[in-house]
Amino acid sequence: MAGNSFGQLFRVTTFGESHGKALGGIIDGCPAGIELDLEQIQLELDRRKPGQSSIVTQRKEPDTVEIYSGVFEGKTTGTPIGFAIHNTNQKSNDYSHIKDSYRPSHADYVYDKKYGFRDYRGGGRSSARETASRVVAGGIAKQFLKDIQINAFVSQVGGITLETPYQELDFSKIESNAVRCPDLDMAQKMEDYIKSIKKEGDTIGGVVTCVIQNVPVGLGEPVFDKLHAKLGEAMLSINAVKGFEYGSGFAGVAMKGSEHNDAYNEDGTTKTNRSGGVQGGISNGMDIYFKVAFKPVATVLQSYETINKDGEKVTTQGKGRHDPCVVPRAVPIVEAMAALVLADYSLLARTNKI
Amino acid sequence: MAGNSFGQLFRVTTFGESHGKALGGIIDGCPAGIELDLEQIQLELDRRKPGQSSIVTQRKEPDTVEIYSGVFEGKTTGTPIGFAIHNTNQKSNDYSHIKDSYRPSHADYVYDKKYGFRDYRGGGRSSARETASRVVAGGIAKQFLKDIQINAFVSQVGGITLETPYQELDFSKIESNAVRCPDLDMAQKMEDYIKSIKKEGDTIGGVVTCVIQNVPVGLGEPVFDKLHAKLGEAMLSINAVKGFEYGSGFAGVAMKGSEHNDAYNEDGTTKTNRSGGVQGGISNGMDIYFKVAFKPVATVLQSYETINKDGEKVTTQGKGRHDPCVVPRAVPIVEAMAALVLADYSLLARTNKI
Amino acid sequence: MAGNSFGQLFRVTTFGESHGKALGGIIDGCPAGIELDLEQIQLELDRRKPGQSSIVTQRKEPDTVEIYSGVFEGKTTGTPIGFAIHNTNQKSNDYSHIKDSYRPSHADYVYDKKYGFRDYRGGGRSSARETASRVVAGGIAKQFLKDIQINAFVSQVGGITLETPYQELDFSKIESNAVRCPDLDMAQKMEDYIKSIKKEGDTIGGVVTCVIQNVPVGLGEPVFDKLHAKLGEAMLSINAVKGFEYGSGFAGVAMKGSEHNDAYNEDGTTKTNRSGGVQGGISNGMDIYFKVAFKPVATVLQSYETINKDGEKVTTQGKGRHDPCVVPRAVPIVEAMAALVLADYSLLARTNKI
Amino acid sequence: MAGNSFGQLFRVTTFGESHGKALGGIIDGCPAGIELDLEQIQLELDRRKPGQSSIVTQRKEPDTVEIYSGVFEGKTTGTPIGFAIHNTNQKSNDYSHIKDSYRPSHADYVYDKKYGFRDYRGGGRSSARETASRVVAGGIAKQFLKDIQINAFVSQVGGITLETPYQELDFSKIESNAVRCPDLDMAQKMEDYIKSIKKEGDTIGGVVTCVIQNVPVGLGEPVFDKLHAKLGEAMLSINAVKGFEYGSGFAGVAMKGSEHNDAYNEDGTTKTNRSGGVQGGISNGMDIYFKVAFKPVATVLQSYETINKDGEKVTTQGKGRHDPCVVPRAVPIVEAMAALVLADYSLLARTNKI
Repeated sequence: MAGNSFGQLFRVTTFGESHGKALGGIIDGCPAGIELDLEQIQLELDRRKPGQSSIVTQRKEPDTVEIYSGVFEGKTTGTPIGFAIHNTNQKSNDYSHIKDSYRPSHADYVYDKKYGFRDYRGGGRSSARETASRVVAGGIAKQFLKDIQINAFVSQVGGITLETPYQELDFSKIESNAVRCPDLDMAQKMEDYIKSIKKEGDTIGGVVTCVIQNVPVGLGEPVFDKLHAKLGEAMLSINAVKGFEYGSGFAGVAMKGSEHNDAYNEDGTTKTNRSGGVQGGISNGMDIYFKVAFKPVATVLQSYETINKDGEKVTTQGKGRHDPCVVPRAVPIVEAMAALVLADYSLLARTNKI
Repeated sequence: MAGNSFGQLFRVTTFGESHGKALGGIIDGCPAGIELDLEQIQLELDRRKPGQSSIVTQRKEPDTVEIYSGVFEGKTTGTPIGFAIHNTNQKSNDYSHIKDSYRPSHADYVYDKKYGFRDYRGGGRSSARETASRVVAGGIAKQFLKDIQINAFVSQVGGITLETPYQELDFSKIESNAVRCPDLDMAQKMEDYIKSIKKEGDTIGGVVTCVIQNVPVGLGEPVFDKLHAKLGEAMLSINAVKGFEYGSGFAGVAMKGSEHNDAYNEDGTTKTNRSGGVQGGISNGMDIYFKVAFKPVATVLQSYETINKDGEKVTTQGKGRHDPCVVPRAVPIVEAMAALVLADYSLLARTNKI
Repeated sequence: MAGNSFGQLFRVTTFGESHGKALGGIIDGCPAGIELDLEQIQLELDRRKPGQSSIVTQRKEPDTVEIYSGVFEGKTTGTPIGFAIHNTNQKSNDYSHIKDSYRPSHADYVYDKKYGFRDYRGGGRSSARETASRVVAGGIAKQFLKDIQINAFVSQVGGITLETPYQELDFSKIESNAVRCPDLDMAQKMEDYIKSIKKEGDTIGGVVTCVIQNVPVGLGEPVFDKLHAKLGEAMLSINAVKGFEYGSGFAGVAMKGSEHNDAYNEDGTTKTNRSGGVQGGISNGMDIYFKVAFKPVATVLQSYETINKDGEKVTTQGKGRHDPCVVPRAVPIVEAMAALVLADYSLLARTNKI
Repeated sequence: MAGNSFGQLFRVTTFGESHGKALGGIIDGCPAGIELDLEQIQLELDRRKPGQSSIVTQRKEPDTVEIYSGVFEGKTTGTPIGFAIHNTNQKSNDYSHIKDSYRPSHADYVYDKKYGFRDYRGGGRSSARETASRVVAGGIAKQFLKDIQINAFVSQVGGITLETPYQELDFSKIESNAVRCPDLDMAQKMEDYIKSIKKEGDTIGGVVTCVIQNVPVGLGEPVFDKLHAKLGEAMLSINAVKGFEYGSGFAGVAMKGSEHNDAYNEDGTTKTNRSGGVQGGISNGMDIYFKVAFKPVATVLQSYETINKDGEKVTTQGKGRHDPCVVPRAVPIVEAMAALVLADYSLLARTNKI
C-alpha cells in the first residue's frame, strides 16, 4: 500500500494532486447512525482554506466538498463515505519555472528519483493541498466522537512563544484572530511578525499545541499502537512537521522520577498530568495534550540557486501565492488528524473485552 | 488488531509478559537468502539486557534467543522466523505489593480499566521487557539492510547535554562506556550523575540521538506513511518516550525559510541537512538523524502514596531492581526500531515503479 | 475496516450506492510509469454496463468514468488514482415499494439488522452496481500486468453446460455474442434459454470460467495468502456468487493421487494441469483456470409474499429493470477481480528475495 | 506481509516448518476475560494429530501445545497469546531423496523458483503440519464464540458420497469413527475404501462439509469482505483444497430465481435456506453451511518419474509415512478456520453502529 490510508477501523484514504481535477477521499468504517451536519464539515474546510486572511496565501480556492455516498436521509449508513473537492483555480503555468529544476527542501528531487517523473504542478501530491481531504474526514470523525473536545491553537511563531499553561487559556478566542492563538496580545505580536516576514518574501516556522478533553479511559493499544505513538505518527504525517512531544515532552527529560510521577486522587484522576493523559500507551481520562513543530515554508519569494534535472546549477526566483507561515492554517489539520486517531481507537476499544 | 505488530511487509509481531514463560515474536516477510549471523543478534540482545553495568538494573536475565523457524542451513528461507526468549529469573513475589494498588505513572490503572484485570507481575505486557523481542527483530532487519548504518547514542541525561554535532563524534566509542555516549568526558559526567540519582533511590530521564547513514534515495511513502512519520511512531512506541524530533526539529521553528532551506550540490546532495535526510516524507540520501526523549523511570525506590483498586489511599514503598536511567539500555532498542522501519520501507520501495 | 478495500499493495477502495450521486474508488499503490489507455478502461466498463443487449437489464446507465488524480501526461504517477462514475439515470421511486419490506434472498433484512437502517434505493451499497468501480480498477490492473492474459467467459447457463476444454475454445469469439460464450452454438442455446426465462419474469443462474495465461512462476504467498485462496475470496466477493473451484476442483475429489498428479516436463512445465497453475499456493507458470458459480438473480418479476419491518406478511410484486441472468455481465467483473489479485501478488513477489 | 497472518481484529500469525525446532503462532486481538480450557485446545490438536487411527499417517507426533503468554490465572488478558508446539519426531533423512528433485503436484518446484532455495525436509513450510497452529488458534476462537456451534464432517471420500441433508444427521457421531462421518454405514464404506487405496500405495480425495449454527444476524461486511468470501478464502488456504461452495453452491446455478429464493417467516427466519445463512455477505441468523473439496494427497508410495534441479529426468520412489486420504484429519482444521473467521467478524460487528 502506498501510504494513502490512515486508520484501521475508522479509515480514510485520500487522493488528489494540487492541480489535478479534484481531491477527495473515502472514509471506510464510519459507524452507521451519525446525524451528519454537513455545514459544520464545510466550516472546518473554510478554516483551512487559502485566502481567509492577510497572513495566509492569497490563492482563491473555494474548497467546496461534495459527498457522494454513505449518507442517507441525513445519517451515515455504515457504508463508505466518498467525497471530492473539485479544483477550480489552478494556475498550472505558475509552475512551469520549476518543471525541470528542484526547489530546495521540497519533495521535487525525491519524487523524480523515486517514481521516475512527477506531476510538477504545485508540488502535485506532495502539496499540503492534500490535507483538505483530511479535514473533511476529521470533520466527520469529530461528529462521531461528539463528547470528546479537540482544540488546537498556535502557541509559537518563530521565536514568539506563548508560555501560558493551556488550562488558563480561553479556547473560545482561538477563532477570533487570524493567527489562531487564544491569547489576543500574543496573537497580535505573532500576526505582526508574520506580516514583517511576508514583506521580506521570507517564511517562518511555528508550533501548534493541541488539547483533547473528555477522553474515556482505555483508548490505545499496548506496545506498537500506543495512543501517543499513533498521534505522533498522525502529526508527523502533516506537511512541514519536524517534531512531536506530548505531556512533559522533551522538558521531562531533565526531571527526576519523584518529581515527574503523577500522584493519584481517590477517583483515579491524577493531581498533576505530566503523563499527558496517556499511560503505557492507553488514555487515563486526563487531558491529552501535545505540541507539533512546523518548519518554515520552503517556498521563499526570493532569488536562489539550485540544480536542474541534469545536475546543472540554475538560478531561479520563488513566485506564486504561498503562506509566509503555515501554522494558522495548520490548526484545523492538527485537529482533524487527532480526531481521526481518536475515532479509530474508540472503535478498537470496543473489542478489548468479552 | 490489538497493536502487537509493526511493519507492513517486513513485519514483526511480538508476544510475552515480563513474568510469563517466554517472550518472543514472529518476523513475517523477511526476504529469503540473508546469511544470518545469530551471534550478532545475541550481541544486540546483550546490549539491552539487565545487569550489564552498575548504572542499570541489577536483575540477572540471560535473555538467550532461540530461533524456531525460517532459517535453514544458515540462511533465511522467506518463511516466518519464529523466536522465543525464555524467562528464567522471574521473582513474581517481588510484585505482590502492587497487585491491588496502582503505581503512579505506570500502566496499572489503565490496564485494569481497559481489560477488566491484569497480569500484575512486573507490569505484565506493559513492561519494557517486551522490547527484547524488538531487539531480536531489529537485529535481523539490520542484517537485511547491510549497507545502511544505524548508530544511536545517549546525548542527554537529566540536564547534562552533549552539544557536539554528530558529525564530530566517533561512533566507535559508543560501546566503550556504560552510558553509551561517544564523548568520553560527557559519558563520565552522565555516569556519575546517574550513580548519584540511583543513590537517592530516584530516577532521571534522557535523550537518545540516532543517525542513519548510507540510505538510498526514495524510501518513504507520500502522505500518511512518510518515512519520518513512521520513524516517529516507532520511537514513540518505545516505553517511556515523550518526544521525537528529526532534522532541525523544534529548533527549526524559529528559523526563516531562507535560512532553513538546504541548497543542492550538483550531485543532488545538499550543502546543509536541516531536512534530516527526509524531504516530503521520502529519503533524499543525506543522513537521517533524530532525537528521542525518555522520561524518568516511574519506579522510584522511595515511599509514596497512591490508591488501590477500591479507590482507597494506600502508602507503598518502591522496591525491586530497576533502572535509575533508561537511556543506556534504550540505545539498542532505538536502533532496532529504526532498522525495522528501514527494512519495511526498503521492501515497499521495490514496488513504486513498473 | 468495513471491508471496502481489496489488495495489500495494489489496493482498491470503492464507494457508492446504486442510487447515490456517484460511485467510484481509489487505487493506491499502482506503480508509476504505466502508459494508461483510458479508452480501454471505458471499454471494460461498457462490457459491464446495463442495456448492452436484449438479455440483460434494460436500464440505461452510461457509466462514464472520470479519473481525478494519479495520472499525468498519460502515465500513472505512483500516487493514488481517484475516480468516479456519476449516476445519471436513477429512478429512486422504482423502489418505494420495497422501502419497508424485505425482498427474499436480498440483503434488505440483514442491512436493517446490522446498521439500524438502510439506503433502500436499488439495494444501496449491496447493489451489483458497485462492481462498476471494480471494473475500472481491474482495467488499470490489466494494463499494469500487460503480458498476463485474462479471459473469462460463460460456460454454463441453467442446465446448459459447455463441456469443451478451454484449450479448444477460441477466446476471440467471447465478445461476439450477447452471452459471452466462445462456442457460438452453445451461445445461441444459452441466449434462447435466457430469453425464455425472461419471458416468464424469472431468472436463472450460470457459471463463468476464467483462464489466466502467461503467468510467471512464483506469484502467491504460502499459508494463508495462497494465490488461489485470494482468487477464491475475490470471486466470492462478487454479488450472487455461490461457489469457486480451480484446477481439478470438486471433480478432483474422486481421483486417485496417481491419476491426479501432474508429471513434470524437463523444462519445469507439467504434462497435465490438474493443479490449475497453482501448487502450494504459488503459481507454477501453467495456465490458471477456475470456475465461478452464480445463483439466479433474486429479483423475479412475479408476485410474492414476504414480510415488512414489523414482521407482518405482505404481498408484493417484483418490478423494475433487472437481469434475467447475471453471467453475461459478470464476465468483465470476474476478469477485473482476477486482474486485481494478480497485480497485487506481482508487486508482493518483488519482495521475496534479497 | 508474506501471508502468514489471518484475520483483522482476532488475528493469528503462524510460524514453523515441518522439520524445524517448533511450530507455533501468536493470536493478537483475543479479547480479555475468556476463561480458557487448555485441555479442550489440546483435544482439538489430538483430533488433527498423526497416528490417531489406521487410516491416517502413522507418524508419531505428540503435538503438545505450550502457551507462553496472554493467559493469567486461567483467563485471557487481552494481550497476545504466544504458543509453540515443539517437534520431537522428525526423521529428516526420510527426505534426502527429494532434496534435489521436484515431487509432482507438490510445492517443491515453486518454492525453489520463488525463494532461490528451500527447506526440503518434509515440505518445510508448505507441509500441512503448519495447520496444527491453526487448530490451536481456532480452539481459542471457539471458546470465545461460545454459543456458536461449528461442526464439520466428512461427506465424501472418492466417489462415495453422503447425500443425507445435514439436518438429518447426528453430529454427536462424528467423532465415533476414524473417518469422521456422522452416518456410520457410510463411515464404514469410506474407511474400507481408504484402506484399499492405502494398500495400493495410492491416495484419494474427499469433501468436508461444515455447518455453523446459532450465528447472530449481522456478521460480515459488505462488498469485498463478505462473510462467505472470507470463509472461502479461509478454506482455500488449507493444504490440498480445490473448491468451496456454500448454500446452494454449484447446484444452485441450474435453479430459477423463483425456486431458489428463500421466503421469509414472520420472525425473519426463512422457510428454506439456499442462501446458506448469508445474504449480501452478511449472516442472516440461519445455519451457515458449506462444502470444501480436497484433492488426493500428492505423495503416492509408488515409483514415478520427475525432474531434478538441473531439469534432468529422474525416477524416484515415494516413501515415508503419509495419509492415504486427508479429509478425516482435515475436519478439525476446517472447524478451526471457520472459528477464526467468525471470531474476527464478531469483533468487527461491534463497530458497525454508533
